[in-house]
Amino acid sequence: MRRGRFVVFEGIDACGKSTQARRVAAQRGARFVFEPGDSPLGAQLRSWLLDASTPMNPVTESFMMLADRSHHVVTVIEPSLASGTHVMADRYYASTLAYQGYGRGVDLADLEAATELAIGHCLPDLTVLIDIDVDTANERRARDAEDRFESADVHFHERVREGYLTMADGDPHHWFVVDGRATPDEVATAIDARLDLLEW
Amino acid sequence: MRRGRFVVFEGIDACGKSTQARRVAAQRGARFVFEPGDSPLGAQLRSWLLDASTPMNPVTESFMMLADRSHHVVTVIEPSLASGTHVMADRYYASTLAYQGYGRGVDLADLEAATELAIGHCLPDLTVLIDIDVDTANERRARDAEDRFESADVHFHERVREGYLTMADGDPHHWFVVDGRATPDEVATAIDARLDLLEW
Repeated sequence: MRRGRFVVFEGIDACGKSTQARRVAAQRGARFVFEPGDSPLGAQLRSWLLDASTPMNPVTESFMMLADRSHHVVTVIEPSLASGTHVMADRYYASTLAYQGYGRGVDLADLEAATELAIGHCLPDLTVLIDIDVDTANERRARDAEDRFESADVHFHERVREGYLTMADGDPHHWFVVDGRATPDEVATAIDARLDLLEW
Repeated sequence: MRRGRFVVFEGIDACGKSTQARRVAAQRGARFVFEPGDSPLGAQLRSWLLDASTPMNPVTESFMMLADRSHHVVTVIEPSLASGTHVMADRYYASTLAYQGYGRGVDLADLEAATELAIGHCLPDLTVLIDIDVDTANERRARDAEDRFESADVHFHERVREGYLTMADGDPHHWFVVDGRATPDEVATAIDARLDLLEW
């Protein structure tokens, strides 16, 4: 059985990554997954994580994300890939580095070490970063349902964005950056051209 | 304000550590705390952790424990110590190293690094290991309410016990081992003599 392709879609909220991940999954017969919250345990962790009324320090937030991720890898992602199913993921390890590391200031080396423990050898073939500026993201977002992350200040989201771009810069073979201000069709075309370079 | 003393009580289930931690807390006017589950968030994490019906891999289990611990340190332990209150804890970081590391085989170096991230500089002044053999523990335990950890096999609990003894051996200045097969009064006398050597 040939292992499935594993592609992750990352970016700040409202960049369009969920839309693109779902579209690619449908078009290529892949499984769509997301983090945090894509399992019964994960759904419970997600509800605590996104509840802005529960004060939680960035390190605790990181461990909750890592608990969700390690459970997701073992119960969903790795079994799918091993059975030959392609997996398209809305967020993965880079989200924790971007949000809790670059965004909230948790030590990056510590987070990277914990990430290795959480995901083992389950690395994406490609991470697609849909990059938009924070002003564009703010214009797009509905303002009536803010969670912990959406309610953080603009500087936080700037740091998250810069973190993503730094990671993409550092590993161009495994990252692909697309300008998320283009139309969804234009974004889709750019992504599909890059995905075609993977062996499917 | 002088910082409070921080003493942790460790050992396998039924060793008597909760009894001793509560007793010392009452006698020395200290705050009694426990892990996992000593906060609203922690109580929710604990209910998932101890539910033997939810399959959970050892790495996920570790991150759940670390999430609980980092939250506990920031919201309960560190503020108490900083305000001059002594803290007596039923379990702390060594439990994760003993159970998930020595017991379940999660890489110890990885767990130690994650532990540093979780607890920062909040180290105990002393860890009291109440050591009993697994046969004695099994005789003491009620058999009608097994959770995930209590239902694990005898070899698991042997590895946990050996892990504790190895940690205590490696840092005798910060660990005190007492024979938990003695009567509660004898155990109390031994513990109190050692605790008197701390500055209170």
